Amino acid sequence: MSKVKTNIAMSLDGFVAGPNQSESDPLGIGGMQLHEWLVSLKAFRETHGADGGDVNASTPIAEEILGNVGATIMGRNMFGGGPGPWVDDRWRGYWGEDPPYHHPVFVLTRHAREPLELEGGTTFHFVTDGIESALQQARAAAGDKDVSIGGGANAVQQYLAAGLLDELTVSLVPILLGEGARLFDNLGEPTPTLRQVQAVAAPGVTHIRYVRGEAA
Amino acid sequence: MSKVKTNIAMSLDGFVAGPNQSESDPLGIGGMQLHEWLVSLKAFRETHGADGGDVNASTPIAEEILGNVGATIMGRNMFGGGPGPWVDDRWRGYWGEDPPYHHPVFVLTRHAREPLELEGGTTFHFVTDGIESALQQARAAAGDKDVSIGGGANAVQQYLAAGLLDELTVSLVPILLGEGARLFDNLGEPTPTLRQVQAVAAPGVTHIRYVRGEAA
Repeated sequence: MSKVKTNIAMSLDGFVAGPNQSESDPLGIGGMQLHEWLVSLKAFRETHGADGGDVNASTPIAEEILGNVGATIMGRNMFGGGPGPWVDDRWRGYWGEDPPYHHPVFVLTRHAREPLELEGGTTFHFVTDGIESALQQARAAAGDKDVSIGGGANAVQQYLAAGLLDELTVSLVPILLGEGARLFDNLGEPTPTLRQVQAVAAPGVTHIRYVRGEAA
Repeated sequence: MSKVKTNIAMSLDGFVAGPNQSESDPLGIGGMQLHEWLVSLKAFRETHGADGGDVNASTPIAEEILGNVGATIMGRNMFGGGPGPWVDDRWRGYWGEDPPYHHPVFVLTRHAREPLELEGGTTFHFVTDGIESALQQARAAAGDKDVSIGGGANAVQQYLAAGLLDELTVSLVPILLGEGARLFDNLGEPTPTLRQVQAVAAPGVTHIRYVRGEAA
């Protein structure tokens, strides 16, 4: 069966976004630094239709993240927008008219709306009946390919806490944000168990891959 | 000049001790799991006078941690004990009559007492006038060797925030403790900058070495 996987960039002090996240600054203060290792890569730039970029030890990690994904699930803040634009069905999210997904994307929300079909194969579907329903729909859309939990922290936490995440790659960036959104929070009791399967040192980041562990 | 360095084992969710730390359980619930990679090593067992143990990718890291150290600085909780035993100068700490340090150890405390000389070259000195004084005394005692900040979290935080830590190795253990003592907390503004210099995957742990970065 296809895997449910996520990759998330985290500061050394545990944050996946900086403080003061807003509609105009969704990653918060300093949060963009978490993604510098990725956006500088040739493998990333290609999926966004741009030339150039680096090839280094992060490249195979990025290819694994970006490759073999048939559907993505994300929280509503990652689709784009706070309460202002969200309530207007004309709002088309943060991702432009040709989003980099090129496959169906399922957005976790409490606000029902019709699917939003954009260019390049990306259609946003809005799921109002919870994470398990979203996963079921994403699995059906992905076929033999993997389902990626795109983020943010809250979406990843919910799938991790529910034991629905097969594989988690943390890209640990050597910055201290001091405050912001924590990845490993709200996980309930007992906390999920993980098994480390790989660690890769790359310029300015260490990628560590975990799979779901034995029940404690 | 000799380095000021520390190695600290941290859970994936950022804790260096579990919840409910007490005199009888100084690492808190689940905290001992943070050190399993270390205590199983031959290199560690030797310093404690024990035979056997594992040799693996953690071995060179442990040798680097344990080697070339001329003095250690630690917080009073790591010396041993809460307010109960501490106020009694007959209290000899957690480390037994032949502690594994074999060099001078400087304990940060508000409670002055005479140095405690134990077997095997370990003498505990009690420093009541702050982290800079402790470092000055430790440097003098260490000579050409390094000064190690032994822990706990609070002592490491103070040296990191003050810009006095040259090198920090985080041994990231794939467990989620949920709550406890956070390593990266109380760091003030601006947060310290770090540069990643090495990452090593080992059984059940990833060791990442950082050095002090440029001032932001």
